[in-house]
Amino acid sequence: MNNDELQTWVDRIRAGEVRAVARAISAIENGTAESVELLKALFTFSGKARVIGLTGSPGSGKSTLVDQLAREYRKHDNTVGIVAVDPTSPYTGGAILGDRIRMQAHHADTGIYIRSMATRGFLGGLARTTADVSTALDASGKDVILIETVGVGQDEIDIVRLADVTIVILVPGMGDDVQSIKAGIMEIADIFVINKSDREGADRVEKEIRAMQSLAMREDKWNPSIVQTVATEGKGIPELAAAIEEYERYLDKQGLRLKKKISNWRERIVEMLRESLLQRLTREQLSDEQLKTYASEVAEHRRDPYTLVDEIVGNFVKK
Amino acid sequence: MNNDELQTWVDRIRAGEVRAVARAISAIENGTAESVELLKALFTFSGKARVIGLTGSPGSGKSTLVDQLAREYRKHDNTVGIVAVDPTSPYTGGAILGDRIRMQAHHADTGIYIRSMATRGFLGGLARTTADVSTALDASGKDVILIETVGVGQDEIDIVRLADVTIVILVPGMGDDVQSIKAGIMEIADIFVINKSDREGADRVEKEIRAMQSLAMREDKWNPSIVQTVATEGKGIPELAAAIEEYERYLDKQGLRLKKKISNWRERIVEMLRESLLQRLTREQLSDEQLKTYASEVAEHRRDPYTLVDEIVGNFVKK
Repeated sequence: MNNDELQTWVDRIRAGEVRAVARAISAIENGTAESVELLKALFTFSGKARVIGLTGSPGSGKSTLVDQLAREYRKHDNTVGIVAVDPTSPYTGGAILGDRIRMQAHHADTGIYIRSMATRGFLGGLARTTADVSTALDASGKDVILIETVGVGQDEIDIVRLADVTIVILVPGMGDDVQSIKAGIMEIADIFVINKSDREGADRVEKEIRAMQSLAMREDKWNPSIVQTVATEGKGIPELAAAIEEYERYLDKQGLRLKKKISNWRERIVEMLRESLLQRLTREQLSDEQLKTYASEVAEHRRDPYTLVDEIVGNFVKK
Repeated sequence: MNNDELQTWVDRIRAGEVRAVARAISAIENGTAESVELLKALFTFSGKARVIGLTGSPGSGKSTLVDQLAREYRKHDNTVGIVAVDPTSPYTGGAILGDRIRMQAHHADTGIYIRSMATRGFLGGLARTTADVSTALDASGKDVILIETVGVGQDEIDIVRLADVTIVILVPGMGDDVQSIKAGIMEIADIFVINKSDREGADRVEKEIRAMQSLAMREDKWNPSIVQTVATEGKGIPELAAAIEEYERYLDKQGLRLKKKISNWRERIVEMLRESLLQRLTREQLSDEQLKTYASEVAEHRRDPYTLVDEIVGNFVKK
């Protein structure tokens, strides 16, 4: 790809052309060499979107909630990008199907772009890929980017942590008492949503969150709000949008938004360095064949892996 | 630490001295420079233990099952090392407490060593740390190493995948239908355990696993066995031990054990390289101060991170 082609691609993305954006995201997912060139060019035009991360267990009504929130933003003439990260088995293909169904629901609306990322094993990890996709959507002019993940693991936590605002979705009576929910997830919530709040137990969940909150004060002194919703009926959605705005105002008033971004970028840069170093090594010095030979030697205890790694690295980096 | 001191430490570990082993594990967790020297020395003496990984949701009775399995091995005069990985919040400290309680249960028995690893953020990741700890326990002469994790995320999958035998623990009526369980976890099981099988629904869970198995044949042609247990009463534990042995015999008969080890080492070496490269970079060229400056510049959009990473890496590696 020459510079002119790259420039045309960038222009088309900035104009919000769906096919150019889709192609960018695929390139990012595949970690192609041109995706890096593209991201370098797009970065300048990013940084304007509000990035909101939402996480919740399967069955928490996450997708419906995200769709409703997108509609709410559309009502106020904000364009919306949705990145749905659901790292399930390649066998299920559920995400791709769901994508199509969701796309159809917003069919007539070009102000919403939805993309699912269902595959594990992206070069550089899911969190980095998601962040880069978010950069591309941002540069494409989307005002709001909603990133949704299934809140089951560290990967998912890493993904939503990169957002400006992180929302954790709970539901009453799912057997996941607040107590038993992974502590790591409770701690990242800037806002709690209790979805399906017409079910019995919504108030109990709220009480449990409050009880938990009373135990520990956040470093930024923010007391996460709790919003009850019934996403299928659109109930509580304007309240959720208001809560998001309230938190963003808090971030800005306290000068915390930049602080948060710096801390996020610090981690992202380290992650990018980690991947980039390995990529250079495997591309320039350590062939797959060689790696397999080493693995055999180690597996047969003919070679100690710790010394091996020291040697490979020693030969690769400057003294 | 000079060579004599290192040698003494290695000797004491090989003799199975609890304090020497505990000190080794702490050094590995902290990623100290001496831990690498130690691992180089210990590696030669490892590779004899059978490594068994067990994963199950919170509430699946995983720890009880692991304890019972350890007792079973002790009955047959095998020494056992248990590594319990439960990446919960630093606030809870539950793991350390649990550790002590479990240690007391095996108090009189020096043939069992239990160690919990509860903290995230180990240098080099939890999977690598766990594997290195397993190497140390192996070199200390333990015949069987049981690695237990909470099966909630990719980290946990990565950990148990490194074992020779991987066991996934399910329970009836936990609301986690086989269908809804993370596909990634179902696929790594060499053996399924349905614990708390005196509860209603155990046979239904078994049927669901069978139905799922009929959909896809494993590459190694192994058809994972299913064992029903009631760990609190010791029921099904000898059967589980037998199932493990059956799978190990299958591995050996088909020449799969070495193949599995080679494939595991391949991934471990890549992971070790990734970490080692980053460590060298941050130690020798990229100070924390400098990184923070870069992060600020990127957060304020005064610098594009993709070009930055290219530059840092370009300056660090040999042409």
